[in-house]
Amino acid sequence: VSSRRKIRLPVDSAEVPRYVGIATFMHLPLMEELDAVDIGVFGIPFDLGLAYRPGARFGPSAVREASRLIRRVNPATGVFPFALCQVADVGDVNCHPYDFDGAIAEIEAFVVRLRANGALPLACGGDHVVPAAVLRGLRDLAPLGMVHFDSHPDTLDVFYGKKVTHATAMRLAVEEGILDPARCIQVGLRGSQWDGKDYENSVQLGMNVVSYDRYESIGREAMIAEIRDTVGDGPAYVSFDIDALDPSEAPGTAVPEPGGFSMRDVQVILRSLRGLNIVGADISEVSPPYDPTGITAVNAANLMFEILCLMVEADVTRRR
Amino acid sequence: VSSRRKIRLPVDSAEVPRYVGIATFMHLPLMEELDAVDIGVFGIPFDLGLAYRPGARFGPSAVREASRLIRRVNPATGVFPFALCQVADVGDVNCHPYDFDGAIAEIEAFVVRLRANGALPLACGGDHVVPAAVLRGLRDLAPLGMVHFDSHPDTLDVFYGKKVTHATAMRLAVEEGILDPARCIQVGLRGSQWDGKDYENSVQLGMNVVSYDRYESIGREAMIAEIRDTVGDGPAYVSFDIDALDPSEAPGTAVPEPGGFSMRDVQVILRSLRGLNIVGADISEVSPPYDPTGITAVNAANLMFEILCLMVEADVTRRR
Amino acid sequence: VSSRRKIRLPVDSAEVPRYVGIATFMHLPLMEELDAVDIGVFGIPFDLGLAYRPGARFGPSAVREASRLIRRVNPATGVFPFALCQVADVGDVNCHPYDFDGAIAEIEAFVVRLRANGALPLACGGDHVVPAAVLRGLRDLAPLGMVHFDSHPDTLDVFYGKKVTHATAMRLAVEEGILDPARCIQVGLRGSQWDGKDYENSVQLGMNVVSYDRYESIGREAMIAEIRDTVGDGPAYVSFDIDALDPSEAPGTAVPEPGGFSMRDVQVILRSLRGLNIVGADISEVSPPYDPTGITAVNAANLMFEILCLMVEADVTRRR
Amino acid sequence: VSSRRKIRLPVDSAEVPRYVGIATFMHLPLMEELDAVDIGVFGIPFDLGLAYRPGARFGPSAVREASRLIRRVNPATGVFPFALCQVADVGDVNCHPYDFDGAIAEIEAFVVRLRANGALPLACGGDHVVPAAVLRGLRDLAPLGMVHFDSHPDTLDVFYGKKVTHATAMRLAVEEGILDPARCIQVGLRGSQWDGKDYENSVQLGMNVVSYDRYESIGREAMIAEIRDTVGDGPAYVSFDIDALDPSEAPGTAVPEPGGFSMRDVQVILRSLRGLNIVGADISEVSPPYDPTGITAVNAANLMFEILCLMVEADVTRRR
Amino acid sequence: VSSRRKIRLPVDSAEVPRYVGIATFMHLPLMEELDAVDIGVFGIPFDLGLAYRPGARFGPSAVREASRLIRRVNPATGVFPFALCQVADVGDVNCHPYDFDGAIAEIEAFVVRLRANGALPLACGGDHVVPAAVLRGLRDLAPLGMVHFDSHPDTLDVFYGKKVTHATAMRLAVEEGILDPARCIQVGLRGSQWDGKDYENSVQLGMNVVSYDRYESIGREAMIAEIRDTVGDGPAYVSFDIDALDPSEAPGTAVPEPGGFSMRDVQVILRSLRGLNIVGADISEVSPPYDPTGITAVNAANLMFEILCLMVEADVTRRR
Amino acid sequence: VSSRRKIRLPVDSAEVPRYVGIATFMHLPLMEELDAVDIGVFGIPFDLGLAYRPGARFGPSAVREASRLIRRVNPATGVFPFALCQVADVGDVNCHPYDFDGAIAEIEAFVVRLRANGALPLACGGDHVVPAAVLRGLRDLAPLGMVHFDSHPDTLDVFYGKKVTHATAMRLAVEEGILDPARCIQVGLRGSQWDGKDYENSVQLGMNVVSYDRYESIGREAMIAEIRDTVGDGPAYVSFDIDALDPSEAPGTAVPEPGGFSMRDVQVILRSLRGLNIVGADISEVSPPYDPTGITAVNAANLMFEILCLMVEADVTRRR
Repeated sequence: VSSRRKIRLPVDSAEVPRYVGIATFMHLPLMEELDAVDIGVFGIPFDLGLAYRPGARFGPSAVREASRLIRRVNPATGVFPFALCQVADVGDVNCHPYDFDGAIAEIEAFVVRLRANGALPLACGGDHVVPAAVLRGLRDLAPLGMVHFDSHPDTLDVFYGKKVTHATAMRLAVEEGILDPARCIQVGLRGSQWDGKDYENSVQLGMNVVSYDRYESIGREAMIAEIRDTVGDGPAYVSFDIDALDPSEAPGTAVPEPGGFSMRDVQVILRSLRGLNIVGADISEVSPPYDPTGITAVNAANLMFEILCLMVEADVTRRR
Repeated sequence: VSSRRKIRLPVDSAEVPRYVGIATFMHLPLMEELDAVDIGVFGIPFDLGLAYRPGARFGPSAVREASRLIRRVNPATGVFPFALCQVADVGDVNCHPYDFDGAIAEIEAFVVRLRANGALPLACGGDHVVPAAVLRGLRDLAPLGMVHFDSHPDTLDVFYGKKVTHATAMRLAVEEGILDPARCIQVGLRGSQWDGKDYENSVQLGMNVVSYDRYESIGREAMIAEIRDTVGDGPAYVSFDIDALDPSEAPGTAVPEPGGFSMRDVQVILRSLRGLNIVGADISEVSPPYDPTGITAVNAANLMFEILCLMVEADVTRRR
Repeated sequence: VSSRRKIRLPVDSAEVPRYVGIATFMHLPLMEELDAVDIGVFGIPFDLGLAYRPGARFGPSAVREASRLIRRVNPATGVFPFALCQVADVGDVNCHPYDFDGAIAEIEAFVVRLRANGALPLACGGDHVVPAAVLRGLRDLAPLGMVHFDSHPDTLDVFYGKKVTHATAMRLAVEEGILDPARCIQVGLRGSQWDGKDYENSVQLGMNVVSYDRYESIGREAMIAEIRDTVGDGPAYVSFDIDALDPSEAPGTAVPEPGGFSMRDVQVILRSLRGLNIVGADISEVSPPYDPTGITAVNAANLMFEILCLMVEADVTRRR
Repeated sequence: VSSRRKIRLPVDSAEVPRYVGIATFMHLPLMEELDAVDIGVFGIPFDLGLAYRPGARFGPSAVREASRLIRRVNPATGVFPFALCQVADVGDVNCHPYDFDGAIAEIEAFVVRLRANGALPLACGGDHVVPAAVLRGLRDLAPLGMVHFDSHPDTLDVFYGKKVTHATAMRLAVEEGILDPARCIQVGLRGSQWDGKDYENSVQLGMNVVSYDRYESIGREAMIAEIRDTVGDGPAYVSFDIDALDPSEAPGTAVPEPGGFSMRDVQVILRSLRGLNIVGADISEVSPPYDPTGITAVNAANLMFEILCLMVEADVTRRR
Repeated sequence: VSSRRKIRLPVDSAEVPRYVGIATFMHLPLMEELDAVDIGVFGIPFDLGLAYRPGARFGPSAVREASRLIRRVNPATGVFPFALCQVADVGDVNCHPYDFDGAIAEIEAFVVRLRANGALPLACGGDHVVPAAVLRGLRDLAPLGMVHFDSHPDTLDVFYGKKVTHATAMRLAVEEGILDPARCIQVGLRGSQWDGKDYENSVQLGMNVVSYDRYESIGREAMIAEIRDTVGDGPAYVSFDIDALDPSEAPGTAVPEPGGFSMRDVQVILRSLRGLNIVGADISEVSPPYDPTGITAVNAANLMFEILCLMVEADVTRRR
Repeated sequence: VSSRRKIRLPVDSAEVPRYVGIATFMHLPLMEELDAVDIGVFGIPFDLGLAYRPGARFGPSAVREASRLIRRVNPATGVFPFALCQVADVGDVNCHPYDFDGAIAEIEAFVVRLRANGALPLACGGDHVVPAAVLRGLRDLAPLGMVHFDSHPDTLDVFYGKKVTHATAMRLAVEEGILDPARCIQVGLRGSQWDGKDYENSVQLGMNVVSYDRYESIGREAMIAEIRDTVGDGPAYVSFDIDALDPSEAPGTAVPEPGGFSMRDVQVILRSLRGLNIVGADISEVSPPYDPTGITAVNAANLMFEILCLMVEADVTRRR
């Protein structure tokens, strides 16, 4: 795409104060003509899947507002992502407010439409059932590897009698053949468990599981290597449940679990994943009503920028 | 019931400081043996029906905590409700977290079980779909009149394709023959409308509608008379959507609508309804994550006490 | 305009949940082609003029978010404003972050551009210096009458050595010949004063001043009549400083003054001003960082809808 | 005093922005030389007497900060109190943090020292046990009448086994001969009661009790007359428990009771008490940790200004 | 006990959503029959001892609510504590609201009653004077070692003239022969000091003091070893003042001291103390009014679970 | 100075509870007679320079309030700064509310007046343009080295067309010959950048730049050494923009940038700078309206104490 037309850049915060104007993700242009888009950033205002605190339906709105802060260039990698391909805010999925399964289908259809236009999805949830739906939309690129930041493995079989929930999403994507479990890694897992076998579910599926305990034991560099080894060169997805962060850095979420990553941790980890072939991503579980200081949304906006930089570089590489 | 056994009173706040102990509604004893209960106060932690701000699933918890403030005697009527019959906190309905229709059935079953034990329900929602379910549990007493405090009529036919929602609950109860619309009155209606015919739905069903505009025009005394005239002597239900209050007195709710009742208004109105044959009630739509000062929960707790006083007096009258 | 083309309506909240999508004022279409617009709703993210609490620069963003709640039809008047002429969100003025006078000029230029396209301005401040600038942009319609809701008269001569401030804006517009003081009325004035002659400044300019004391003494109906008498049939402006409301209804503002209007008061007053020839308006001084419950922004969004209804009806009348 | 020296005025907010400088009550000079003071405004950071929510120990600090807003002249009466006699911030009582009785003695001693210098006390609590102590310091002016704004009568005999508490303070002052009950009036009483005889305690002591119910029934004018009739011309005290206000206007307090006064109510009432011989006052029960918007402190600061105006005018009258 | 009867487990969060039901500590059964209890978890709603910010009296209530999040199995150790012995929520101590010494006696009596039934105490304060009283109740097991997490040593001789305060509690327990100072270790100490000899008091008593500076210098593993060496095999107590955590992880406390432990630190440390013979514990100083995000209570609930796991394993070991 | 007179100490918190009394910085005496002062701590309530979130004008007020917590002795170094020379709260600069350049001049004049009295400045901003002005006031001691903690370099040439802004302050001070760039070091830089050359501006000026990435790479000890090497023995200034801290420790600031210093980091770093010849300092960018837990102000107060300890020791050294 980007070779065909002039790229539309975000509003320049050195010319327009960051508090001016409609809030789009990272000041991006709001584009409906998807054929001009390389990477579509969009919201999934949906939280019917939450089993504890609700509120993630307002996540996209809060992250858009917080992302006013984002400037243009990555301080560590020097990447100016908006100039390398056409990134756009492509709006929100119109998730049905009551119909859980219908909303899941709407999310999938939204991503399918992006793919039909050659665009890649960078989603902002919504509760962490959303990767189940986004991944379905990426079937054309399957099987995918995955880097999954979370405090919970999300690989139960059923949860309260349901197959599609935030607690089962990752198992589902494996069972549906979209994720290749051998190229999937879950990092940061911790928190009290349902029955002591919570992580074994993932292991039995074939995923690589790095609990927070193991992360601390092997260290950041080793884990980065392990992520790269696991995911390999094939197309991969990044799923970031904001509760991977310690609650001091992300209080505004459904199920805070103390003893997690700092923003510094995940910034460094993400910046070390350059070269991975990231073709889609979600950042989920920002719950604005539980975020009075707004720090959770600010952190999510920064992570969105980091992941976008990875996606853009991968996109440029692929198009070479 | 109460004649058969010694009534268990709430903890006495003149002997135990109000911040001491497990939070039950109004310091009531927590009773599982329903056959000893005359009026069962319970929570309905359910909010899947909300079409805007979620959070009401934590309403029962917040109102229990806020109700620590409640003492014993009604300052206007002198009623000491806890001494007149057995009031108890009978816990929460175990609402399914994903299955909307299942949860509605669970609520109904909970009330049916209360009724089977001869007890009357005083429910704390949850979103304002809950009266649809509570009323189903009161079928044995139907047809019922109703005093409905709200800013919205909740009498749409379908809402986003669904018959059972907070926007359709009251129509449903009429159609199911539980409410006698001729003995139903809706008070406090206001707020921008979907299509300008929002109140006509109620009128066409046969209900008496008193918008906030009309309330202000006729005055408090006239409206009290109108309520009494409409509801009459038959069994009746009180449904109190907390958004009937002005948002300055109830910011913690799903859909705040400015220009509503003050607590003083509704305290006086409720105290003037002595003698009505109230057999059940709900107080709904308290959304704790949007209530940083806790005022919404404090007000809901006070209203629960007022409605309880009405229910107790009616109960005593009936048992005479 | 509206006769020439099909009107673009806001997103329909009965089809798209209100928490879905980019936040524009009242779900309005975001339009840059001003020639198709009859009434342009826009933000003025500017607060350099504040002499106490800052934060109003985030007012437009917060009011856009809060206005997700607004539906379509006025419950008192039955007006469906969006269908009567083309209303649009036309973005924000790009106010310079440091250059006070430059920003004032930018605001004026923005309104002049609206006028050049035949559109009328409905502005969302920003601090309450903004009417000084908006009114300059309306010079082509001068002299204007004004209905000014505020707790302060804003008619000092200079404030901290400056002629253009939130404390002097209304005097300035008179001196510049844009306001006809004989057709201007200030309502709701109260609060401790600088020197006891604060209101006399307005009176000496020729304005009609209705302090909150006098409002309470004469009553709502009489004040409505007085507003209508003062403003007359000529073109008029509505300036609404949100601190006109009591701080219990608008805590998020720069200078809260207890003892003010309720939302109910101002809803009824505004709805009684149908027929006035309103050609422009501003709602100012919403300060999100001081508004943890969001009630101030919710109220401002509702007032914006009320004023819009007046402007639309006046527009339709003029075009007949 | 004031005739003897030049009065030191508060910092002029038209010359120094209100957010500049150390926070004293109403920008008053901080004076330790009490012999130059006519009216000493001071804090009582004490809350050991609270039986529910603590926090009032930070009341003086929060009210000082909020009182930055206060300008100079009363908008209704035109009184410029700071120019009529020497008003000063005379600091805080050094209340012992653990020793309840010791702290009470320290408060009394502080007021006695003010009296020894010919000054009158305007106290900012602290919990509402403080009037018991302040009144003891005013013994030289006894017997005193009282205007007591509260939602609770504070005339129990003992509370949790103690004679000196916020729930017994007013009875104590009567029993100690400091208050003349026949010249005392309690206004605004409401809220659920301990045993239904809560107000009778006051009546039996000889006080005039105006519950909020009666207030509403007789109206504002009649109550003002009743206050004036009750208190008469003798020296009198004003005790203002901030929970007299409705919780929507004063959420930050120990025991919020819905259905109370608005600020408008009490502003008008206080302004109508000109001519009463007010010789001391307290404003109590502001609890900053429960006041996230700061509205409670803002309202308390405004009430302090109103009461000060009464005290100053009475002082001028006496010195004539 | 547990061998004698069937253990009552907490409500299963995989069957009942965590927001459903009365809030007890960790969904535990509420049991009054103490003879069936092995470990009694209880609240001490008391904060008269605080010399700065109050509010800890609401600590038990907030921790109960936050502990809804806790599931069943420790993620690091695999321990399922609720299945190994009978753990129960045994309610709150009825602390007198005014009588400091009386309340201390009530706390002691409560623990003595637990001991008389063979149960061990896990207390949730309240301010950090509570270990002084809990330890008195554990005299039958004295002398005890102690692991004390705090930013302050609490070993002053007198504080504001009092021997029993949060600043003197640990010295008192030594002087009373309940703590064996040679088996006591204080970790995490930091913050500005009263006179530079604050830690020497502890050292002179014979305790091992590990300031945060020393902790950082020796590292986590060495400190764990030092704790184990100091405390040895004898019965020991864990006292956790939540201000041991950095204020970014525990803002809701009386005296926040920056530069402290992370949750990760203390989780790992506690999990490494398996095998210590822990016979009692308290978690104190959670102050809900200063905890708008609730993170402090969430962290305290998680720490309570960690300490419970230690107590349960020790209990099982002892009973073998 | 200190040799000439008796030093006035802060109020002793072991005798007066910390919540008692007017809030001055660290309970310091409020002194207007500057000739007796060695180190003047003062506020700069100014935030016109902010290009994103406003509010820092209330920074001095909030830090004064939070500094009630500070006791007397540094826990790491044992320094009791208040006893070594005369430290005083010397009030606030009367910054003009509208006139940016005038306010800058007022700040400079305030510092010049301190210098004329032989005192050194420890300023509390205000937005981070304030060092530009404070440094001008220190011209008599120039050229100065600097330790600058920040997430942004503040060395743009112009920002929105202005030379004196928070984004240009440090370049300005170099160009004006006040800072010797070869003795200046900036630490903690991070965050998305304007154009990728943000740090090069500083390097080209001749400053030593330690991004947070480099800090992490070299470690704390190496950075301390680098700071000491860079700054050397000459007079130096400390500028601490609170956004140098991670937002989890300082959410209340204008431009939060995740991934920054912890309080522990900066405490250790500052304590390791003993012996540097610090002659002035500022702590800036605390924005109270974005700090609902107050943690940002608490941290700033603690940092102020740390920097004061450095200044006092340097002062004692110089006077030897």
